[in-house]
Amino acid sequence: MKVGFVGLGAMGSGMARNLIKAGHNVTVYNRTRSRADELKPDGAIVADTAAQAASGAEAVFTMLADDHALEEITFGAGKLLESLPAGSVHLSASTISVRLSRRLTAAHRERGQHYLAAPVFGRPDAAAAAKLFVVAAGPQSQIERCQPLFSAIGQRTFVAGAEPPMANVVKLAGNFLITTIIEGLAESFALARKSEVDPGQMLEILTGSLFPAPIYKNYGAMVAHEKFEPVGFKLKLGAKDNRLVLSAAEEAGVPMPIASLVRDQFLAAMAQGMAEDDWAAVSKVVYKNAGL
Amino acid sequence: MKVGFVGLGAMGSGMARNLIKAGHNVTVYNRTRSRADELKPDGAIVADTAAQAASGAEAVFTMLADDHALEEITFGAGKLLESLPAGSVHLSASTISVRLSRRLTAAHRERGQHYLAAPVFGRPDAAAAAKLFVVAAGPQSQIERCQPLFSAIGQRTFVAGAEPPMANVVKLAGNFLITTIIEGLAESFALARKSEVDPGQMLEILTGSLFPAPIYKNYGAMVAHEKFEPVGFKLKLGAKDNRLVLSAAEEAGVPMPIASLVRDQFLAAMAQGMAEDDWAAVSKVVYKNAGL
Amino acid sequence: MKVGFVGLGAMGSGMARNLIKAGHNVTVYNRTRSRADELKPDGAIVADTAAQAASGAEAVFTMLADDHALEEITFGAGKLLESLPAGSVHLSASTISVRLSRRLTAAHRERGQHYLAAPVFGRPDAAAAAKLFVVAAGPQSQIERCQPLFSAIGQRTFVAGAEPPMANVVKLAGNFLITTIIEGLAESFALARKSEVDPGQMLEILTGSLFPAPIYKNYGAMVAHEKFEPVGFKLKLGAKDNRLVLSAAEEAGVPMPIASLVRDQFLAAMAQGMAEDDWAAVSKVVYKNAGL
Amino acid sequence: MKVGFVGLGAMGSGMARNLIKAGHNVTVYNRTRSRADELKPDGAIVADTAAQAASGAEAVFTMLADDHALEEITFGAGKLLESLPAGSVHLSASTISVRLSRRLTAAHRERGQHYLAAPVFGRPDAAAAAKLFVVAAGPQSQIERCQPLFSAIGQRTFVAGAEPPMANVVKLAGNFLITTIIEGLAESFALARKSEVDPGQMLEILTGSLFPAPIYKNYGAMVAHEKFEPVGFKLKLGAKDNRLVLSAAEEAGVPMPIASLVRDQFLAAMAQGMAEDDWAAVSKVVYKNAGL
Repeated sequence: MKVGFVGLGAMGSGMARNLIKAGHNVTVYNRTRSRADELKPDGAIVADTAAQAASGAEAVFTMLADDHALEEITFGAGKLLESLPAGSVHLSASTISVRLSRRLTAAHRERGQHYLAAPVFGRPDAAAAAKLFVVAAGPQSQIERCQPLFSAIGQRTFVAGAEPPMANVVKLAGNFLITTIIEGLAESFALARKSEVDPGQMLEILTGSLFPAPIYKNYGAMVAHEKFEPVGFKLKLGAKDNRLVLSAAEEAGVPMPIASLVRDQFLAAMAQGMAEDDWAAVSKVVYKNAGL
Repeated sequence: MKVGFVGLGAMGSGMARNLIKAGHNVTVYNRTRSRADELKPDGAIVADTAAQAASGAEAVFTMLADDHALEEITFGAGKLLESLPAGSVHLSASTISVRLSRRLTAAHRERGQHYLAAPVFGRPDAAAAAKLFVVAAGPQSQIERCQPLFSAIGQRTFVAGAEPPMANVVKLAGNFLITTIIEGLAESFALARKSEVDPGQMLEILTGSLFPAPIYKNYGAMVAHEKFEPVGFKLKLGAKDNRLVLSAAEEAGVPMPIASLVRDQFLAAMAQGMAEDDWAAVSKVVYKNAGL
Repeated sequence: MKVGFVGLGAMGSGMARNLIKAGHNVTVYNRTRSRADELKPDGAIVADTAAQAASGAEAVFTMLADDHALEEITFGAGKLLESLPAGSVHLSASTISVRLSRRLTAAHRERGQHYLAAPVFGRPDAAAAAKLFVVAAGPQSQIERCQPLFSAIGQRTFVAGAEPPMANVVKLAGNFLITTIIEGLAESFALARKSEVDPGQMLEILTGSLFPAPIYKNYGAMVAHEKFEPVGFKLKLGAKDNRLVLSAAEEAGVPMPIASLVRDQFLAAMAQGMAEDDWAAVSKVVYKNAGL
Repeated sequence: MKVGFVGLGAMGSGMARNLIKAGHNVTVYNRTRSRADELKPDGAIVADTAAQAASGAEAVFTMLADDHALEEITFGAGKLLESLPAGSVHLSASTISVRLSRRLTAAHRERGQHYLAAPVFGRPDAAAAAKLFVVAAGPQSQIERCQPLFSAIGQRTFVAGAEPPMANVVKLAGNFLITTIIEGLAESFALARKSEVDPGQMLEILTGSLFPAPIYKNYGAMVAHEKFEPVGFKLKLGAKDNRLVLSAAEEAGVPMPIASLVRDQFLAAMAQGMAEDDWAAVSKVVYKNAGL
């Protein structure tokens, strides 16, 4: 397929590379051009604008930092929305707000284009290894049409529903659940440490019994040993996703007390200079409040 | 080994039966005698008091509802503490407070007896199938001595540390983490339902990607479909364990904001008549507050 | 002075009337024209647009429902910002976001106009009686220039600082403190009621001893007796102000845990159909959760 | 009247002195005898034990640090409960648990004695100046009988109900409301400070408009200027009262989310070494979390 790919950060460059490997014809765009040029040896064509990457494409992926970045390249004269051919499909893979996903659904429909929300679960190493989990939502026919693309970047594709924003809800819920794990572990290990229980020993017990999932092992190791390097996912981005889930909850009329609590922990972490740390470093706020 | 077993509830009777099966000589006691008599065909000797079950035993298990029940049969003239032979070991398997565990540590030491905290992870079906996880703490020599007993009731024994209360801390932390999962899922599914995402579909995505652990599957199914039968662990007991973790945190000087939040959810659930329901039914409080 | 007044809701019409009474020359505008016409007998000139009310004015008040309403009449071709004469002053009296106040500060400065934030404390009866408290912020010279206007609508003018958004911060903090009182009272009276303490008696004790302020008496009476009529301030507007204080806190990097908690209570109240009730009705959420 | 007075701390010594001044015949007891001897010049008789202070008294006040201290001098062979003459009345003025108040109600009734809960609002300076607010509960006849005593120590007596624990509920609710004020102010001033609003100016506005009560002025000045000296009420005692209100709420089946939140703030403050500071210093936790 002829594919455009916009946004070549830690996640996007791995995904684009895997699309090329799978034999697709990929035109890439990134604001900082050097990141796009790095994909040339793999066979990527480099576009000067996002719109150019979209024009002539059957499908265009966007994988950008936040709502604002996506809005900037999408809406307005000569932007992506105007450049995408009728009948083509926009695959929004980044974590964006439910509200923007709703707006994109309407905007593409109006122009006779297609739109799928296709956020992914997984860190940059999973993106590089084509091991992402893709959570797609939108018209069934478009999901089927794009399945080869999803298969090129991920280990499994899930369908969240027929309306694109449904995938965004699921993605935000998933990220929210990770924050409950981090905060829950932080409180548990603060208790352990002040009770003279060895954190490593407690981690082994918890992950060897009730909580054997990798997610508990990975975050547990970070929290138990206060090792937050290398940075997998920046705290300020975690705070942004928390903001998105709270916005979605507000629009849907749902109180989410743990999400509210996590919001304040992230704010405290950022106020104390941890915005660029891994989001698991939010546990330091818990530790400090416990006098550790 | 000559073993006493006090407390034959849903958990205790399975554990006692497995000790008998493993070839140990088991004397049982239960306040409601009929539950003890049920173990006679398996080969149990039935005692008239907890003290009698302890007298002459090399090891005595206690598996009782709460601190109060354990204190009642342990302290005072002619009770378990006075009846246990010097050199014998008390294995406290129920979820009790860190404070009581500390008191038992001192009381048994004073009488030349041994004491291990050996709380377990697992529901009644795991107890019946000898699939519990045993979290033991206390002197290494005693843990080794009792390993055959732990092997008879569980699939794996973990050592939490050299001081018995350390095992109680780990057990309370584990139960606390389960409550964070339940509450986190409830908030997520409230959001999903009010966003018209199919709860079953979201559950499949979450447990098929980032959260494949059985604990997410089990509680996820309960919360997503509001199916809280059969009752695996009563909400009022969950509230008790939450109280215990908050007490331990208070004594250790650790703020645990999610635990505090869960406390209020349990209180709301009980105020609305759910004390005897499965503790996952606490999610109904989240749903009601969302107008569901 | 020649004054424009935009926004004639329950608060604005009282304020405009008092400006007329004080001898000012007042041109009013309201989206629903009938509310403007009602002020004709008092001597108001009725404008067809907000811009028209501003053109030729020395000072123009805006008293609108929310940020959106203010943005709509202010920005864009032929709107208030373009119509206000150079040297004139815009007095923004409604509760708006710190962010919008910052934007207005810059926008008016650029056009050689002046801008003061001048939010007020007080309910519609205080607006009618010229008993508002005015919290002004901006250049000292402009505050002095507008003092006759503030004196016409309020019992006292406070200066919050030299930058307009400072008044918005103080206003939002004040409204936030009211929500802490409502929620605090609700929790207290839930405890009283379930402890068989007579709510009326407790109210008398609390307001007769430590909490004699009218605000405790008024909200205390509403909460204790569950009497939320007549509606003084709609719950959905309270929820909006809570949102504004949380946004301001987020931008400033300040965790506000009670504000977060109140957010969830307001969401629960609205999910249960109380959006149009008085904001003190949020206490019903507390009562329901207590099984009352 | 012939009065016993047990507990001569900062509050108790002022109260006892005022009872003497009013012409009552007062026998005092304090664990540290020197504090009792200081009252001799005023006319106090000094007893060797609490029981001795109670024996022969028509009324005995207790004003002790916590439940434990009161239990110690009350229950057991030769203690206050056994020594108080039949028909005499025990006036429990300290802040104790609802549960202990219930136990005392039953215990005194059984012995043909009377019992009133009579906690007080006010700091040591109010105790010295006979300006306390007395919140009494119990049989009307006993309250009338003791009115002269209450009038000697306070500016006003309130009746909370016919069952003594009702006064304890009201007292705990009152102290809880003070903590909501402190925490609410701390969050507000954290926002102000990080928004460059002058804290002193904001305090003047808030207390000059909606919040003119002395309690806002006093705590507002402490929080705004971070001046927590002299220590009026120790943070660790505030934490104890918070614990008591949460216990009462738990027994009554009432979720109190702000009280839970305040609990964690107090724990954080104590973990950071502020146990002996004024309880308003809990605002430092809020400030630290905001990076101030």
